[in-house]
Amino acid sequence: MLQTRTGKRTAAAAIRIAVDMAKEGLITKAQAVARIDPASLDQLLHPTLDPKAPRTQLARGLPASPGAASGAVVFHAGEAEAKAKLGQEIVLVRIETSPEDIHGMNAAKGILTTRGGMTSHAAVVARGMGRPCVAGAGDLKIDYDAGTMTVGNRVVRAGDAITIDGGTGEVFLGTVPTVKPQLSGDFATLMGWADGFRKIGVRANADTPSDARHAREFGAEGIGLCRTEHMFFEKGRIVAVREMIVAEDEKGRRAALAKLLPMQRNDFVELLKIMEGLPVTIRLLDPPLHEFLPHEDAEMKEVAAAAGVSVMRIREAAAKLFEVNPMLGHRGCRLAITFPEIYEMQARAIFEAAAIVERETGRKVEPEVMIPLVATKRELDILKERIAAVAKEVEAETGIAPAYLLGTMIELPRAALCADEIAETAEFFSFGTNDLTQTCLGLSRDDAGKFLEVYRQKGIFASDPFVSIDVEGVGELVRLGVARGRKTRKGLKCGICGEHGGDPASVHFCAEVGLDYVSCSPFRVPVARLAGAQAALKTAAVRAD
Amino acid sequence: MLQTRTGKRTAAAAIRIAVDMAKEGLITKAQAVARIDPASLDQLLHPTLDPKAPRTQLARGLPASPGAASGAVVFHAGEAEAKAKLGQEIVLVRIETSPEDIHGMNAAKGILTTRGGMTSHAAVVARGMGRPCVAGAGDLKIDYDAGTMTVGNRVVRAGDAITIDGGTGEVFLGTVPTVKPQLSGDFATLMGWADGFRKIGVRANADTPSDARHAREFGAEGIGLCRTEHMFFEKGRIVAVREMIVAEDEKGRRAALAKLLPMQRNDFVELLKIMEGLPVTIRLLDPPLHEFLPHEDAEMKEVAAAAGVSVMRIREAAAKLFEVNPMLGHRGCRLAITFPEIYEMQARAIFEAAAIVERETGRKVEPEVMIPLVATKRELDILKERIAAVAKEVEAETGIAPAYLLGTMIELPRAALCADEIAETAEFFSFGTNDLTQTCLGLSRDDAGKFLEVYRQKGIFASDPFVSIDVEGVGELVRLGVARGRKTRKGLKCGICGEHGGDPASVHFCAEVGLDYVSCSPFRVPVARLAGAQAALKTAAVRAD
Repeated sequence: MLQTRTGKRTAAAAIRIAVDMAKEGLITKAQAVARIDPASLDQLLHPTLDPKAPRTQLARGLPASPGAASGAVVFHAGEAEAKAKLGQEIVLVRIETSPEDIHGMNAAKGILTTRGGMTSHAAVVARGMGRPCVAGAGDLKIDYDAGTMTVGNRVVRAGDAITIDGGTGEVFLGTVPTVKPQLSGDFATLMGWADGFRKIGVRANADTPSDARHAREFGAEGIGLCRTEHMFFEKGRIVAVREMIVAEDEKGRRAALAKLLPMQRNDFVELLKIMEGLPVTIRLLDPPLHEFLPHEDAEMKEVAAAAGVSVMRIREAAAKLFEVNPMLGHRGCRLAITFPEIYEMQARAIFEAAAIVERETGRKVEPEVMIPLVATKRELDILKERIAAVAKEVEAETGIAPAYLLGTMIELPRAALCADEIAETAEFFSFGTNDLTQTCLGLSRDDAGKFLEVYRQKGIFASDPFVSIDVEGVGELVRLGVARGRKTRKGLKCGICGEHGGDPASVHFCAEVGLDYVSCSPFRVPVARLAGAQAALKTAAVRAD
Repeated sequence: MLQTRTGKRTAAAAIRIAVDMAKEGLITKAQAVARIDPASLDQLLHPTLDPKAPRTQLARGLPASPGAASGAVVFHAGEAEAKAKLGQEIVLVRIETSPEDIHGMNAAKGILTTRGGMTSHAAVVARGMGRPCVAGAGDLKIDYDAGTMTVGNRVVRAGDAITIDGGTGEVFLGTVPTVKPQLSGDFATLMGWADGFRKIGVRANADTPSDARHAREFGAEGIGLCRTEHMFFEKGRIVAVREMIVAEDEKGRRAALAKLLPMQRNDFVELLKIMEGLPVTIRLLDPPLHEFLPHEDAEMKEVAAAAGVSVMRIREAAAKLFEVNPMLGHRGCRLAITFPEIYEMQARAIFEAAAIVERETGRKVEPEVMIPLVATKRELDILKERIAAVAKEVEAETGIAPAYLLGTMIELPRAALCADEIAETAEFFSFGTNDLTQTCLGLSRDDAGKFLEVYRQKGIFASDPFVSIDVEGVGELVRLGVARGRKTRKGLKCGICGEHGGDPASVHFCAEVGLDYVSCSPFRVPVARLAGAQAALKTAAVRAD
């Protein structure tokens, strides 16, 4: 792991030298593009600590998401959001984060956790948001009740200022000054050359208008993954989501979903407008429902009141939804097979949004509706029929037949193996290599931290399989999936939307197996663009030999 | 699902008629073997309710393990064991069971749970033990504190007699008389004919001497899976296991393991003697360590005292070992990569046991040492070296070089896909199709109950994939694994040791793909023998066409 400062200086200097040499004709543009390490770009895109500033190190964790950030320590997501609204700069400090903390993470300047690895929830979400993050700083002991974090006999209290450097994993006391990223003209020049060589598309994983704008700024050619559940966690919505979950029957669920429809429709209107006709892949609800339920009494009371049921009923719902292995549980399309009204609401929101955007902009919109966790063709057939029925309804109401593609995530080994059958129904594939890694290797990304480091030391894994794709295992499933899918449907559009989409080695692999695009966090789009160009140059060089 | 009584009469009559007809020359022996439904045998091998006896039904669950049993209701495994020791007949009633309940399940005449499906822990273990079991009788509300189970306004208290029928899923009040299985001469005759036609081997999954004896009585040709962890749960051992888990360092772990060594060695001596030279596959420790930790205060104190640490330390150990998705966690060979001393102790116990048995019986013993949850060749290489070192030590001490085969479970998609590489090290493969089903389909067998029934109704799964192998997905991995493994190592011995080994349709599949043997619960061995014979007859018929 390079030091931030060295890394930053090296990357900027390397780009300047390469561009200068190419301009002077000493090397070709292809050579200029080929000599820059794509991973080094990451450091250029975020603020970093002022190298001259003094600092006092408090602890060290994993460099989970690059960039430096300072702010007052806040231990709870709700408080983080409230303080941020008052204009305060805060760092959210948690033992670990969960999807319920998203709004607090979004409100924070940086995120610090004491548990979890490079692919923990905090790390993955922070990278997606472009928020600096230090994860798994295990020396820090957090006491939520006391509102303190302690290392040795040093105590940091809620409200005290700290600074984190997500590029090195360091945590400092007080505020250390930072330097803003200076994306020089050379950077833009080099990226332009890279795009000229690149064959594989680069999209971004983006769930919010702000993600989508970032994605476009960084050169994304579309959205490869919009996770609709992230929209469900926003204040004012989560209560309706919970109402739906605790509803006694379909009627109750539909009533709650009706409250969500206009909000979800607005989300899509905004996204589709920002993307101006570029492809947008929208994944329907994926996580198990228990992820949305409250854990604290006050919140339970709020949901109970909204849903008109007792707090006991909320507790019962949570107990009933408990899962031993949630990763392998009642989620993805399985939710829609048992509760079809959820995807029906989402499909309606997408189609109505597309109609609005078409009317307002005069530009044709063709969203890609993506079904997660498909294991069998039959699941997809059942849901396709439901979604087609919603499209018919919207057509009857608006007079416009929604144009859309219906596709699926390939994120279970079975789906990759049976891709020939699944492609009879699916109009596109997106390989969800996060989950495919978990299932193919039997490795929970929430738990693997306990032994992954030993595995790396002993040479079992050359690198973290959640960071760089396991070419022999997971890669073999991608290869089989693409080949079998395209046997049925010639030219089937295939992409990847796992965290691997922003990893240079994985981008090379994706180009090699003939994927149409990779999709990654907005802040990693330039990395993927450069890696994609290098893959194309390498292939051309091999052909020329 | 056939009614027990009808089923039993049909199976016995069908066998009698088929054998008579063959003896009279009206049909061939092959035709006699072909016309008996293997699944119907299951009913013949267990006691059933006296059809003439009156009964009052209390509830109904899933017919999880055939046979009828009566006894006093007991809600806790420890109490079940204590009462059984006093000669009382009891039925263990739990919301669900966990590995800690094994001794209580073993002590019980029957098992009743209110949660869980056909492949829940209770169901799987009960079938393995040949204990009648009704699982997932959700109408019954258990109150452990009050010591009651309630349905409507009917309350059954601890100590009250109930009867369960594991063949129908029914639960009755009081004691309903049962009829013992009468395995007529016709049954033995037919099974003899079947063995003459059968090509595929049939072994049993057996962890205890009593399992092994049952297995041989039912005609098993070896043990395909001895789960060594089941030996760890026995009273007097579990404390040493827990001591090992909470030990601060390797020295502490080795001290605790030294206590387990003689017990584990005795287990293997007994098993190897009973099996008289038939193949015995011993799987080294598989479950995550947290499965062995106590949940109750009294037990925590006991472990703390034995290990010489505080109760707080036990709690900390449990918190540290907590996993979000234990199925995909720190288990199988991953334990041995991080704590090699565990498998070293087990390998030593196996080799020393083999030496003792060879000396005492004069018969050569070649145990098959099996490593679980392998994803990469490198894991196997590392552990092979450790085990070989132990073999050298034992040779130096006893003067006899241990003869053994070193093989692996293929239970992760990656292992099946990379079977060519893994077969460079592995001397045999055993497909663990329970876990392979969980990972290939992304389906937790502890959680799938919530939607599997809907999946069956909607035609997504023709049958429960944990009962009958999913030929297109999991089966494809088995096919690839066998083909790739045998490409590297010609004639590689391949078997299957999941629950599927006793399912007739799955046995047909296993025969088709060229597996050498199936291994199943002892009580299902006759089912597998007959299904194996029918598969061979079908193949011969296809060839003759």
